[in-house]
Amino acid sequence: MAEAFGDRLGERIRQLGPLCVGIDPSREQLVAWGRGDDITGLEFFMLQMLESCVDVAVAVKPQVAYFERFGSRGFAALERLIAEARSAGVVVVGDAKRGDIGSTNDGYAGAWLHDSSPLAVDALTVTPYLGLHALESLFRAADASGRGVFVVVASSNDEGRVVQTALTSSGESVEDWHFRQIAERNERGGGLLGTVGAVVGATRSHPRFPLEEMRGPFLVPGVGAQGATANDVGRMFAKCPKGSVLVNASRAVSGAGPERRGINDAARRLRDDLTEALL
Amino acid sequence: MAEAFGDRLGERIRQLGPLCVGIDPSREQLVAWGRGDDITGLEFFMLQMLESCVDVAVAVKPQVAYFERFGSRGFAALERLIAEARSAGVVVVGDAKRGDIGSTNDGYAGAWLHDSSPLAVDALTVTPYLGLHALESLFRAADASGRGVFVVVASSNDEGRVVQTALTSSGESVEDWHFRQIAERNERGGGLLGTVGAVVGATRSHPRFPLEEMRGPFLVPGVGAQGATANDVGRMFAKCPKGSVLVNASRAVSGAGPERRGINDAARRLRDDLTEALL
Repeated sequence: MAEAFGDRLGERIRQLGPLCVGIDPSREQLVAWGRGDDITGLEFFMLQMLESCVDVAVAVKPQVAYFERFGSRGFAALERLIAEARSAGVVVVGDAKRGDIGSTNDGYAGAWLHDSSPLAVDALTVTPYLGLHALESLFRAADASGRGVFVVVASSNDEGRVVQTALTSSGESVEDWHFRQIAERNERGGGLLGTVGAVVGATRSHPRFPLEEMRGPFLVPGVGAQGATANDVGRMFAKCPKGSVLVNASRAVSGAGPERRGINDAARRLRDDLTEALL
Repeated sequence: MAEAFGDRLGERIRQLGPLCVGIDPSREQLVAWGRGDDITGLEFFMLQMLESCVDVAVAVKPQVAYFERFGSRGFAALERLIAEARSAGVVVVGDAKRGDIGSTNDGYAGAWLHDSSPLAVDALTVTPYLGLHALESLFRAADASGRGVFVVVASSNDEGRVVQTALTSSGESVEDWHFRQIAERNERGGGLLGTVGAVVGATRSHPRFPLEEMRGPFLVPGVGAQGATANDVGRMFAKCPKGSVLVNASRAVSGAGPERRGINDAARRLRDDLTEALL
């Protein structure tokens, strides 16, 4: 069994800071950089973002939807990005929000969490509408190879609140139920921070569940363009272990492009603010 | 505005029956057919399934996870399957269970629901943990091109029940809330059956919401290998309009392979049973 993803990520965050740079080659973004909305524009964008941030970002998070819109050619570009990032020593979080019944999740585990796959990433985002426990085959594949899985528990957007705040038969909210189940699974794995993390929007109010008890890493979107600040994140995760919080920023970094110096400066300022607030 | 997907699908189902054949090239399936667990085995499987069912299945439903495990090469195979199915006049449901925040869903809409994409399908499955209303960009893309979106509301597996039966702040269950919201959106679109459908497992007990009021198509997994029968489906949807129910079977069909005659016979028997129970 490899070292758990949470512990491995925690060490890297304490060395390099908590910044994850989102790589979101949307049509709007490519156009804003004066590029064509095509595979050539996408490849320029993804490599420019990676190479501009490689010394200040502990991780990058490609948003798979924006690659998928180009079909198999988009996935070939994503494979290239993953290979380049990993050879540069940058943690790769595949932001794919996958999730299905158990047998189908075996397929997604094969795609994202097995050494032999061209899409193998350090961690994958998943959604639990078909059941947290249906994701177990992904968790086990991640356990086996030291990879991680971030379950979307409390998303950064408002539309998700109807489901996430609904009350389960145990009387706790859907989000609290997920935090507690994840905590129990990570506890069984031993170590300080386990395989299973949670996505928690920085734009959310503090959940009732004590986040410091989840024993896993957090992936936190919502800083910058979506409105939250480094200090908001610092307050929400104040009691959590140092290194357990990975904070994503996308437009706040790419918006300073397309020149490398601008991108690097924006990422460095964010990294420094986040380091001060969290480490 | 094109004819709504639900009405278009309903006409086809009334002509050809309600059978959707799932194309699930899992490792286990390829091995069971005596094929290698590789892209060559996958392509043999997908084309054998399509060509064997083309006269008895109104639709096919490739499970994207099993293509995704081969990365960009798997997506190239999926593009080929989609093209072949559509040129044979078979409806294609992309079973991808996508779902994210609104801006990201624009990317998924571009991938699956725009004419120019190599992955363009007739309908896409999505999950609503990040909010049904965050899926609106997918619904709008589908409206514009006569495509459909099936929202997973009540999945066939047991693990999803914690979330799907939780109580929203309005006091109704998460699944009932989704049925009602989908009904309201379809009603605004006019027509008998609208753009937005629901995935409802045949293995579930009858929901409280009156399904005949949803005004959209249903995609029903769980028949055959998962345990439900054609008569179970007939009872659950007894009050719904003729043609509004598309029933998926995967292993119950592929298990009769790899010979074409066996596959076709199994699919035909299922189609006949489903037609009797539903039409």
